[in-house]
Amino acid sequence: MRILIRGAAVIPRPDRGVIPHADVVIEGRRYAAVVEGGGAGGEFDRVIDGEGHLLFPGLVNAHTHLAMTLFRGLADDLPLMRWLTEKIWPAERNLTGEDVYWFSLLGLIEMIRSGTTAFADMYFFMEEVAQAVDEAGLRALLSYGIIAPTPDRIEPELARAEAFVREWDGKAEGRIRAALSPHAPYTCGPEVWRNATALARELKVPIHTHLAETKEEVDRMRAETGRSPAEWLEGLGVFGVPVIAAHCVHMTEKDIEILAAHRASAVHCPTSNLKLACGIAPVAEMLRGGVNVALGTDGAGSAGDLNMVEETRLAAILAKQKAEDPEALPAAEALACATWRGAAALGLGKELGTIEPGRRADGVMVTLNKPHLCPGHNPLADLVYSAQGADVDMVFVDGRLLLVEGELVTLDEAAVMARCRELARRFR
Amino acid sequence: MRILIRGAAVIPRPDRGVIPHADVVIEGRRYAAVVEGGGAGGEFDRVIDGEGHLLFPGLVNAHTHLAMTLFRGLADDLPLMRWLTEKIWPAERNLTGEDVYWFSLLGLIEMIRSGTTAFADMYFFMEEVAQAVDEAGLRALLSYGIIAPTPDRIEPELARAEAFVREWDGKAEGRIRAALSPHAPYTCGPEVWRNATALARELKVPIHTHLAETKEEVDRMRAETGRSPAEWLEGLGVFGVPVIAAHCVHMTEKDIEILAAHRASAVHCPTSNLKLACGIAPVAEMLRGGVNVALGTDGAGSAGDLNMVEETRLAAILAKQKAEDPEALPAAEALACATWRGAAALGLGKELGTIEPGRRADGVMVTLNKPHLCPGHNPLADLVYSAQGADVDMVFVDGRLLLVEGELVTLDEAAVMARCRELARRFR
Repeated sequence: MRILIRGAAVIPRPDRGVIPHADVVIEGRRYAAVVEGGGAGGEFDRVIDGEGHLLFPGLVNAHTHLAMTLFRGLADDLPLMRWLTEKIWPAERNLTGEDVYWFSLLGLIEMIRSGTTAFADMYFFMEEVAQAVDEAGLRALLSYGIIAPTPDRIEPELARAEAFVREWDGKAEGRIRAALSPHAPYTCGPEVWRNATALARELKVPIHTHLAETKEEVDRMRAETGRSPAEWLEGLGVFGVPVIAAHCVHMTEKDIEILAAHRASAVHCPTSNLKLACGIAPVAEMLRGGVNVALGTDGAGSAGDLNMVEETRLAAILAKQKAEDPEALPAAEALACATWRGAAALGLGKELGTIEPGRRADGVMVTLNKPHLCPGHNPLADLVYSAQGADVDMVFVDGRLLLVEGELVTLDEAAVMARCRELARRFR
Repeated sequence: MRILIRGAAVIPRPDRGVIPHADVVIEGRRYAAVVEGGGAGGEFDRVIDGEGHLLFPGLVNAHTHLAMTLFRGLADDLPLMRWLTEKIWPAERNLTGEDVYWFSLLGLIEMIRSGTTAFADMYFFMEEVAQAVDEAGLRALLSYGIIAPTPDRIEPELARAEAFVREWDGKAEGRIRAALSPHAPYTCGPEVWRNATALARELKVPIHTHLAETKEEVDRMRAETGRSPAEWLEGLGVFGVPVIAAHCVHMTEKDIEILAAHRASAVHCPTSNLKLACGIAPVAEMLRGGVNVALGTDGAGSAGDLNMVEETRLAAILAKQKAEDPEALPAAEALACATWRGAAALGLGKELGTIEPGRRADGVMVTLNKPHLCPGHNPLADLVYSAQGADVDMVFVDGRLLLVEGELVTLDEAAVMARCRELARRFR
């Protein structure tokens, strides 16, 4: 299959800015050529008109809990611990695999429609999540969330997480990769962390966890161990494998050094962090310290949606306030966090994240023919500071079209929404 | 003209929550009835199907500079003073009335499409802005921005501002009201403020200005006068007339008391404040202190867009972080700031801002049939935390439809965008 996308404005990677007019050729699952000025020759199975559009690398949502779309709007305006203990955890006890399957499909539709092509997900009933991802055609790093409050839960939880990795890692033509996810330093003891790290090394998969999301958990860890959560994990040898650390809100200079030294990735989730009043992650400082910072929405239960276009804008403007410097995290750097830095966090830094020959053909087009993107002095700045998720009208992963002229290819949106509304009733 | 909107979910005012199913009747320019459960009888000139939609009072953008859509994407990631002195002010010296007319139309299209029905605008070439507002059918409080750096500019600037008020206040079937706008305490001296206040009293119009946007201007005012900007204005008697104070980022307890005592309104502009790293306004504290807090986008030159749906979400989540309290500014209160509190700021608190019989028929419908608004546990929370501007598919002002099923009624979008792209070229 050879596809030509003709005449779009193209962001091959954010630090190279915008090519005003280019032809982009896809062969099979990979980009084959980017021809500045246009004029790509040859035979094509499909030619897509890119005029008036902006083509850029697919957005990577590096931290979410997909099926929590079920809890969107169920319980807002509450502190994290009350939200979890009074609302979410009781509701999750009634969750079934069927719920997770359908609300994962709903989340996948939302992600496709707002330009996400790859994501990292941690939840329960992961077989059902994987099934949904396979059908949708997205790329994902999936993991079962290990919570072991008592010693007797350690072995069964790890076994369950391991079984998922062994069954699904590399499946869906390689689009699905698996990880191990001890939930957080405050919900898993040293034994879980040591065993999970050994297992991650053996299975050659990364660890995806929550780190330093609230001041309370950091203070408690310090009181109990004399260490920050990052120091504590380092002491357990966890950073000997690749780590994806979601949130990283409350970080010391030393914590930043630890993440940078071990090439761990931090995932900034600004909407969720503000909404739960957890704090503002030091994004500019982490990037300056050499940490790979990716972006994520967190679950729609806390964040409201899975819209990475919005998350990128919020990251860009919030980093300026946090650093007290309007030059912090300029548009191109924010878009880097949302694209190739996200790919790097997922362990796919050499495979995707940019539009360059040889890279996996994951990409997104937005129409520029919108009043809020006019007059178009700088389409990259407009994408970050002015675009809406709804401006996305084409999405492809591995060269396969998932959204064309605003129409979903792989999923039946009306059927998924109808089923989800039905299933949601018993949670009210 | 009698219009029936049948069977929508309705938010008559945010603190009353959502009526799941109601008929709303419009007679002429005003709401005539809200019938819970549906079943409104009588003859209608037009019946609109509201099934699967959420109807709510029109959003009020209480602080913007409409024609700055021209500068969208022209200069981002810069500090306020460099952005103004190196980029915006030089560009504004080349502005013509024609530019302002067309880019005001562009901004009006953007506002209609994202659910804004009324706004407060301060800029130059206000006759052209008023002309555009008249054609578009929106409601606006318009004012010429007075900047008098030297004494010889005081009289001509005030004369120009007065002429605009005398010509346009009450025009466009009453949809246009005028105000006086000394730009800010740091750009206008005591004589401007005293004369503008006397004139506002004589003309019975409010004052719309910028207040305490940056720490620098507040520190300078304190160093020079020993007072905060709000104290300084109070000393000049400015609060003897209704005041709309944009930004209010750096406010003391005493400043908050001053605004509350004089029933002045603060306009919170969170996107612009974050993007320019000006700080985070104490919204929850101001509301608790009795200040009427409205929301605004500021100009698209600094904020990137004029999307009040996004601004409302950002206000709701940012207030939680600022107050370090996830219960601060819950969804209904944020929506109140975006609707009736905005109307009150514009001096129209008794005329509009809610869907109640006798009120002006300004309203917005979003479709709920979207994956990111599913499963719909709480449509009000979904509107604030999950909706996009693009979900708006109907807008009306004074009972006149401006957007129907996503189609603009009063303006030619393609023609406006084409002309704006042409005019924008000489600013690059």
